[in-house]
Amino acid sequence: MMKYVSYHLNGRDTWGHIEGDYVSDLGAFFGGDLKTAIAEGRLGHPAANATTRLSDVKLLPVIPNPTKIFCVGHNFETHRAETGRAKVGHPSIFLRFADTLIADGDAIIRPCNSTSLDYEAELALVIGKTGRHIAEADAMSYVAGFTCANDASVRDWQWHTTQFAPGKNFPGTAPLGPWLVTPDAITDLGAVTVESRLNGQVMQHATLGDLIFPLPVIISYLSGFTTLNPGDVILTGTPGGVGAKREPPVWMKPGDIIEVDIAGVGLLTNTIAEEVT
Amino acid sequence: MMKYVSYHLNGRDTWGHIEGDYVSDLGAFFGGDLKTAIAEGRLGHPAANATTRLSDVKLLPVIPNPTKIFCVGHNFETHRAETGRAKVGHPSIFLRFADTLIADGDAIIRPCNSTSLDYEAELALVIGKTGRHIAEADAMSYVAGFTCANDASVRDWQWHTTQFAPGKNFPGTAPLGPWLVTPDAITDLGAVTVESRLNGQVMQHATLGDLIFPLPVIISYLSGFTTLNPGDVILTGTPGGVGAKREPPVWMKPGDIIEVDIAGVGLLTNTIAEEVT
Repeated sequence: MMKYVSYHLNGRDTWGHIEGDYVSDLGAFFGGDLKTAIAEGRLGHPAANATTRLSDVKLLPVIPNPTKIFCVGHNFETHRAETGRAKVGHPSIFLRFADTLIADGDAIIRPCNSTSLDYEAELALVIGKTGRHIAEADAMSYVAGFTCANDASVRDWQWHTTQFAPGKNFPGTAPLGPWLVTPDAITDLGAVTVESRLNGQVMQHATLGDLIFPLPVIISYLSGFTTLNPGDVILTGTPGGVGAKREPPVWMKPGDIIEVDIAGVGLLTNTIAEEVT
Repeated sequence: MMKYVSYHLNGRDTWGHIEGDYVSDLGAFFGGDLKTAIAEGRLGHPAANATTRLSDVKLLPVIPNPTKIFCVGHNFETHRAETGRAKVGHPSIFLRFADTLIADGDAIIRPCNSTSLDYEAELALVIGKTGRHIAEADAMSYVAGFTCANDASVRDWQWHTTQFAPGKNFPGTAPLGPWLVTPDAITDLGAVTVESRLNGQVMQHATLGDLIFPLPVIISYLSGFTTLNPGDVILTGTPGGVGAKREPPVWMKPGDIIEVDIAGVGLLTNTIAEEVT
C-alpha cells in the first residue's frame, strides 16, 4: 500500500508519496501533478525517500483539478429512508465543480446566503485510466485509489428545485483527502466503516457493505453516459444521520470541527468558517 | 456588432472574428483561445482583416473549453406545462461537462445504449468577466455575448432518477455555435425568437420574453452559489414542443437534421449519427 498527496511547498504546487510523517517531492522528479502522475502510471512504484515533514507542507485537495467530479445521492439505505425518497433502479448522479474542493485542514465555507450547511461523509474513489462502457466485472481495475470526502451541502439551495447542483457547488464545500491510498489498502471493501463526527460526536456510521449501488455498479453506470478519465473523482454516497434530517436539524456553524473517518483510508478534518465577502 | 468563432485550420485550434463569409485568425496574433480572449478583454475591438473563407475552416464549439456549463430546466412556461412539473421559485440548474460540446455542422451522437434522443433549442450566453454575488441590475454587464445551443437530451437516462446529469452528459450532445455575437447584436431581448426545426419542420418556437426566469435572474442566481468566469456558458432554457412530450414521442435518429434558429444570433445545424463503439 502506498499513500500519495498533493501539496504546496516553497511557492509551488507539487505531489509526492508519504512514508510515516514524511513526504517525498515526486513532482520535482517527474513534473506534473497527481492527476498526470496517475495518467502516466506512476503510482504504486518504489519512490524516492520521503524527507520533508508532512507537518511542514500545506496539503491541497488530493486531486486539485479533476476534470469530472461525480456524486452519488441516497446510496445508503439509512440515508435514502431518512430523506423519504423512493427506491430507484439506477444510481442518482449529480456533479460538482473542481472549485468546490478543499484540503484536509482547510475551513469549509458557510456562505453568506445560507445557514443550512450540512455534512456528508463519503468514500471517494479516483479513476486511474480512461474508460467508456466499462463492464461491472472490469470496473475495479479503473480505480487508482481511495480517499475521504465530505460532500458538504447547502440544503436550502439544494432543495430550491428538484436539481441538487446549486446546493452542492458552493466554493469550499468539498473536503477531499488527506491522501490517496492505493487500492491494496483495502482488502475487504464491504467491511470498511465510514463515519462522521461533529465536534467529536458520531453523526454517521456505516459500512460500505450497506451501499445500495456498490462501486463496480457506479463506475459501470457512469461510464455508460460519459468517458471516465484519470484523476476523475467519484463520491460514492453518504450514510444516514445527516444534520438536515435530525429533530431539530443540526447545521454546521463557524468554529465547528467536522471529521470524516474511513477505516484504512484516512481521517479528514475540517473546521467551519464564515464566507468573507 | 461583432461575431467570433473558434475553429481549426492547418493543424491548429484558433479563434477569430467574422466579416461576411471570411474569418480572421486572431489567435495567430494574440495567442490563446476565445475563452482567454474574453478574459483578456479582446472582444469588441476593431480587428485585422478577415481573409480566410469560413467554408475552408473546421468550426469548433464556440467556447471549446468552458470551465463551467450551466443549464436551466423548464424555463419556458410551455415546456414546464408539458412536463407536468411544479412551478418553482428559483431556476432549476443542472450541469454539463465540456466534453459534451460539438460545433455547428458536427453530428450529434445517438448513443449505443438509448434511442430516446431529444432536441432542446436554447439561447446560450457566454460570461465575460469574473463575478460572485452579482446583483440582477448588474447581471447583463457580465455577458460577453450570445450563441445558439442544442441541449440534446437522452431522456431515459435523464429520468433514471430525479437528477438529470446522466441524460445531459453524453458526449456529442451539446451543439454550441456557430459563433458568438456581441451583446449589441440584440436590441430587444424579449422579442428574440428561439426555434427548432427537425428535418425542416418547426418543433419549437417562442420568444425570449416568455422565459420564466429572465437572463439577469439566472446570472444573479448562479453567482449566488458559484463564481462565474470568462468563457462559462449558460443554456437558458428551451420552449415547449420537445420530442419526448409529443404523442407519439419524436426521437432524433441517424440521418436527421436538427436546426436551432435564433433570430439575430445564428443558425445552428447538426445531423444525427450513431455512436461508433
